[in-house]
Amino acid sequence: MSNSIAVVKIGGNVIDDTQKLTAFLQDFAKLKGPKILVHGGGKKSSQFSKEMGLTPTMHQGRRITDAATLDVVTMVYAGLINKNMVAQLQSLGCNALGMSGADGNAIQSVKRNHPEIDFGFVGDVTKVDAGFIQTQLSHGITPVFCAITHNQEGQLLNTNADTIASEVAASLSDSFEVVLHYCFEKKGVLQSVDDDDSVIPFIDSASYKVMLNSGIIADGMLPKLKNCFDALNKGVHSVNIGLPRMIQNTSHIRTQITL
Amino acid sequence: MSNSIAVVKIGGNVIDDTQKLTAFLQDFAKLKGPKILVHGGGKKSSQFSKEMGLTPTMHQGRRITDAATLDVVTMVYAGLINKNMVAQLQSLGCNALGMSGADGNAIQSVKRNHPEIDFGFVGDVTKVDAGFIQTQLSHGITPVFCAITHNQEGQLLNTNADTIASEVAASLSDSFEVVLHYCFEKKGVLQSVDDDDSVIPFIDSASYKVMLNSGIIADGMLPKLKNCFDALNKGVHSVNIGLPRMIQNTSHIRTQITL
Repeated sequence: MSNSIAVVKIGGNVIDDTQKLTAFLQDFAKLKGPKILVHGGGKKSSQFSKEMGLTPTMHQGRRITDAATLDVVTMVYAGLINKNMVAQLQSLGCNALGMSGADGNAIQSVKRNHPEIDFGFVGDVTKVDAGFIQTQLSHGITPVFCAITHNQEGQLLNTNADTIASEVAASLSDSFEVVLHYCFEKKGVLQSVDDDDSVIPFIDSASYKVMLNSGIIADGMLPKLKNCFDALNKGVHSVNIGLPRMIQNTSHIRTQITL
Repeated sequence: MSNSIAVVKIGGNVIDDTQKLTAFLQDFAKLKGPKILVHGGGKKSSQFSKEMGLTPTMHQGRRITDAATLDVVTMVYAGLINKNMVAQLQSLGCNALGMSGADGNAIQSVKRNHPEIDFGFVGDVTKVDAGFIQTQLSHGITPVFCAITHNQEGQLLNTNADTIASEVAASLSDSFEVVLHYCFEKKGVLQSVDDDDSVIPFIDSASYKVMLNSGIIADGMLPKLKNCFDALNKGVHSVNIGLPRMIQNTSHIRTQITL
């Protein structure tokens, strides 16, 4: 367990901003030791959907993925975003390998089965092939995962990037001391949603329970925090939530989460 | 040199036809031993370009790749086509890993420098990392390359799929007996372009020279045959040109090319 690994997830707000993305990729490329990048989608898929005359269908903040939308997200996430990111990382000396969960059978999922809503081609992760990922890492490769997985029956499935990061991190926890970084547009988990500087520096299981009961946590943070504790409960060492630059500057403000 | 490997290139006419593509992937998945797939683009990128209001610019049958067109081909080749093919191969028990040339720094290229025409973001292959490809093969992985490469400075480049297949095949010829298959819509190289059954069964350097001088070879076949002889001159064992089903049925009609 002396090996440590960083699993870094970046969200749409970084991907949509060329300067922010370049700065982030420079920081990521400089990270020492084995590392994995997981990226979300950003606004480009909605843009392309619109240009192609598709109307995005949402349900409680979640996109319903019909067949045409699945094609668009596959093109944008696995094609446009993933390959440009990989090319940039290569130019920075990081030997990146961009993948969906279908590649190398790395991340398997099942189509979401919801009693009331048909989410369409949305997948819930069932298995990560840690052996495949470790083989790549052992050859100096940096896996870069987009948020597309597959069901092993030939069907691609749109999958939440936060969950992919959590599951990939958990899958490696037998072999590595895993630190999972959720980079987003805030400095961390906020005590008060209107005050950007009200970052809660540490959260553990006990304080999490208190926060849940007090209703202090903003709705948007709930699924992210669930992913954090899922990862921790499966053996991940610690999780950081904050701005992208926290991955290089270890004294940067953030929320650190442990069990 | 007891190891043999198949490098198979399929073109747009197969990719555009769901039934043909499924039949081909079933045949490809059944191929014994190490293998590599290289795929072209098909009509989907032109379709999407049109839907997005882009006008394809052609010069002597070659697409001029401006920045917007590069985005579309990256989305369609590396995203939509590559990932759906990988998912189908996984469902057929073939552990496929879809890649562009940027992934793992597998295929490097330079932007084409033409004295008269600016082809835009088009790349000519300069180097294939055979070591990276062999590492994947040694772990039971089947690389699936789309026709996008990179210049190591962060720029993706649209690249001819026939050339990628030829260069990938050549790069492996020190370690494998490489058979390169060019699958397309004809039964082979035709003696008479109007007679689908006038397949020339064998071509070698001597007969190739005679054919070149006699002007018998159709214009469209010239670059393909050049790629064949480039591969053979770099150590590839033999090249087959014909219908997709030739890869499974070794007695199927085809044109076999050797030095």
